[in-house]
Amino acid sequence: MSSSIILVAPQMGENIGAAARAMSNFGLDDLRLVSPRDGWPNPKANEMAAHGEFIIEKARVFETVNDAISDLNFLIATTANLRYMEKPITSSREVFNLAQGKVGIMFGCERSGLTNEQLVMADVITQIPTSNINPSLNIAQAVGVMCYELFTRNINPLPNKNTPLATKQELDFFLAFLESSLEEADFFKNKKLAPTMKSNIRNMFTRQSLTSQDTRTLMGVLKSLISNR
Amino acid sequence: MSSSIILVAPQMGENIGAAARAMSNFGLDDLRLVSPRDGWPNPKANEMAAHGEFIIEKARVFETVNDAISDLNFLIATTANLRYMEKPITSSREVFNLAQGKVGIMFGCERSGLTNEQLVMADVITQIPTSNINPSLNIAQAVGVMCYELFTRNINPLPNKNTPLATKQELDFFLAFLESSLEEADFFKNKKLAPTMKSNIRNMFTRQSLTSQDTRTLMGVLKSLISNR
Repeated sequence: MSSSIILVAPQMGENIGAAARAMSNFGLDDLRLVSPRDGWPNPKANEMAAHGEFIIEKARVFETVNDAISDLNFLIATTANLRYMEKPITSSREVFNLAQGKVGIMFGCERSGLTNEQLVMADVITQIPTSNINPSLNIAQAVGVMCYELFTRNINPLPNKNTPLATKQELDFFLAFLESSLEEADFFKNKKLAPTMKSNIRNMFTRQSLTSQDTRTLMGVLKSLISNR
Repeated sequence: MSSSIILVAPQMGENIGAAARAMSNFGLDDLRLVSPRDGWPNPKANEMAAHGEFIIEKARVFETVNDAISDLNFLIATTANLRYMEKPITSSREVFNLAQGKVGIMFGCERSGLTNEQLVMADVITQIPTSNINPSLNIAQAVGVMCYELFTRNINPLPNKNTPLATKQELDFFLAFLESSLEEADFFKNKKLAPTMKSNIRNMFTRQSLTSQDTRTLMGVLKSLISNR
């Protein structure tokens, strides 16, 4: 998966440099800038980039977001707040499960983030979960966290990456069938522990990102085990 | 889980401030400094902390690492390189599965990280995976990633948090039993697809962090399904 970072109207050169350093830490090298406030090149960006300076050197500047994203297959937009509610928001932990092809991750300017018009362009909107005490991440920190998520996903890829994640309905269908099979087998004979056991079993399957194919495989496994009586 | 960040001999006030900002973003507020190079207080730290300035205001300074960690139950040390090989290294994604009680996360100075003597003090050593192209993270980025991992773990806690993660042996035992049960049920009758199916099934169970208790529950589930013939 080839990926690009797009900074829209970034204000401070220091932040652009720190973002480039974080990109290089996590194996990304394609930085795209849309109308940087202080022009380009910007010596402050070079200063902060450390060993990521090669990314600053080959960064490309575009006039519009449209120009910057034209060759990408999948655009992820980041947002700090939930004012934009028309599309579902996928967490930073999950979002790369959905991405395919040439992926762009887009960040708004320090002061105000991406506009609604820019968010609309994305295939998916993501948010890094933060505390209510101080929800506003430094932009280079946000770039770092997203690149970290992408890097750890790439070194621990999901199986069946090309099949979509299971819907809640698919997962529930499997879990309900598993539970009823276990009821039938008298697995929950300790009535006091039963609710905890059920919730532990559910958690084991819901806390990972199962694909649709995974749930079908699990249904097959379960039916096979039961029918071999 | 109450948690503290410990910066050992930090050099630049700007980095201390940026680390405090990241801490506040992810709900931490206890910052401990061991012998900061430029003394304390440091106005540059305040400047970079943004809405995390309250953390700078109440940060505590210690002379030695021992003083800084005396009240903690569990110490995590971060390292950028693998020169220290006597203890296993747990990834930043997994490390909070092991932590209990009052947790400290300790970072070395910008130039050279933690010494072997400091690493020895930790219950566990962790590393943020990075690219070989530029493995050296800015310290505030590293603090940010660790705080992010802790925050996302706290909002999506593992079930059975107090039971340890399964050993590879426990997991293999379950997976081998599952496979042989499926063989017996003739689940893998398509010999061509069998290796892929086996690997998909294994991946579903290995890519999440199952606890020992989880593997025991899964064994119980499996035995119950099989025996109810």
